Amino acid sequence: MTTDRQAVTVLGLGRMGSALAAALLERGHPTTVWNRSAAKARPLADRGARAATTPGEAVTASPLIVACVLDHDVLRTVLDPVTGSLAGRTLVNLTSGSPEQAREAEKWARAHGADYLDGAIMTTPPGVGSPETMFLYSGERAVFDAHRPTLTALGDPVHLGTDVGLASLYDAALLGLMWSTMTGWLHGTAVVGAEGTPATGFTPVAIRWLTAVTGFLTTYAPQVDAGTYPGDDATVDVQIAAVDHLLHAAEARGVDNALPELMKSLMLQAKAAGHGSDSYASLIEVLKK
Amino acid sequence: MTTDRQAVTVLGLGRMGSALAAALLERGHPTTVWNRSAAKARPLADRGARAATTPGEAVTASPLIVACVLDHDVLRTVLDPVTGSLAGRTLVNLTSGSPEQAREAEKWARAHGADYLDGAIMTTPPGVGSPETMFLYSGERAVFDAHRPTLTALGDPVHLGTDVGLASLYDAALLGLMWSTMTGWLHGTAVVGAEGTPATGFTPVAIRWLTAVTGFLTTYAPQVDAGTYPGDDATVDVQIAAVDHLLHAAEARGVDNALPELMKSLMLQAKAAGHGSDSYASLIEVLKK
Repeated sequence: MTTDRQAVTVLGLGRMGSALAAALLERGHPTTVWNRSAAKARPLADRGARAATTPGEAVTASPLIVACVLDHDVLRTVLDPVTGSLAGRTLVNLTSGSPEQAREAEKWARAHGADYLDGAIMTTPPGVGSPETMFLYSGERAVFDAHRPTLTALGDPVHLGTDVGLASLYDAALLGLMWSTMTGWLHGTAVVGAEGTPATGFTPVAIRWLTAVTGFLTTYAPQVDAGTYPGDDATVDVQIAAVDHLLHAAEARGVDNALPELMKSLMLQAKAAGHGSDSYASLIEVLKK
Repeated sequence: MTTDRQAVTVLGLGRMGSALAAALLERGHPTTVWNRSAAKARPLADRGARAATTPGEAVTASPLIVACVLDHDVLRTVLDPVTGSLAGRTLVNLTSGSPEQAREAEKWARAHGADYLDGAIMTTPPGVGSPETMFLYSGERAVFDAHRPTLTALGDPVHLGTDVGLASLYDAALLGLMWSTMTGWLHGTAVVGAEGTPATGFTPVAIRWLTAVTGFLTTYAPQVDAGTYPGDDATVDVQIAAVDHLLHAAEARGVDNALPELMKSLMLQAKAAGHGSDSYASLIEVLKK
């Protein structure tokens, strides 16, 4: 196969790493893959990937190395023996980790003459390759720009900034938002489900409502940045009055109330701090200890 | 003013009631308004509303009465003296309350010969009148259908079912989803804000991510209805591993962790109940006590 697409190596062929390699192959990138247990490489080799037998062979095969392994320790275990081959290459690290680990990895890569980007994959494996899927990157802008055409094969590449820790920091923050939203949805689903409404009936209404909620977030974001929270639309006091409706409705239907009770507690703390007439965004003052 | 639009009475002119009356006037409905303290009626009278001086005058002015007062007790205090005038009219009650209160109010209205719909307004006052805003209704379908053209002046009318308690039950469930989402967003905003990212920088990424999250809800809803939670995309075990990244990142930046700790606790309870390899939707089994 001849191609003008950049050659890429993918290290780590778990479900996510395999999806990354498949997306690159799909877009015609000469793709080399490596995994500690070689069996994972076979389905990709069948689709045209070159299966490297050692990390050294994998690293030297491509100017761009995409890593998606269990954690940063595993990554170092794989790459420390082959640091001599890293110079002049770019390591895009999609392995989950902390901002501190990302900074350490960048320093380590640079010490070996390699460029480094840290990244976070904002989807599950089936979403890889879709232009709607966000891939978050942080690190040197010029490195990002140079590899952007290739990274587009995986999803929509979003550069967050030059602080290499940003991708994993956003990743953690966004997962928290996901869990909060999914848990709130499950709680509401349990409440209406107790009266016979199926989840598939409630969910389209819930999703439409979330569109309205994202409008509130857009209104509240500049309030957070300004540190003032005008309660023009709805105050913390109004929310405190409303939360009891949910607590009673859920309690009466045998639904666990730890989540709304926590939110009521945060609202009451905001009120006690003088934010009763402010918007819900003022709760950030309670969260910032 | 002559019009073929239905005459409507609005009882209660707080910020929301005033917005309802204004939206009706805007669409050309002959609108009668009443409020316990008459001063609130003046701005609406200036825009063409008829200001009734008594609840009796207000009720007899229109075949459709929209009520938006503090609570169900206030509504009864206002209407109990004029029940003799209710027969043949329709009461659309947008006052916040519980499903039980809605059922009681329907029974009360029917006893006085009136049709009854219960409703919930899924916006803040500035959103009233927009076709994108959901107004949730429950009660007899024929009554809803008869008044749908008028209710469209307020927002997009969504009929949830004939069980009159559904609107307030959905309202409570959706507000819970809103608080969960907004609190999760504030937590994430605080985490990235600690590294200098403004809320206005984080929020567009968060909103885009919420679009992906709504895709997960759509996937999970049929799982909830089926009571089986295949963890094809991401398991509870995977989420448990990831939540520690958030806990550490938030802890290191002085952000209160009660929310992610609660979610981790729910995840661990789901795992203990045998759902470690299932999807996040299995947490509903923990919420249903």
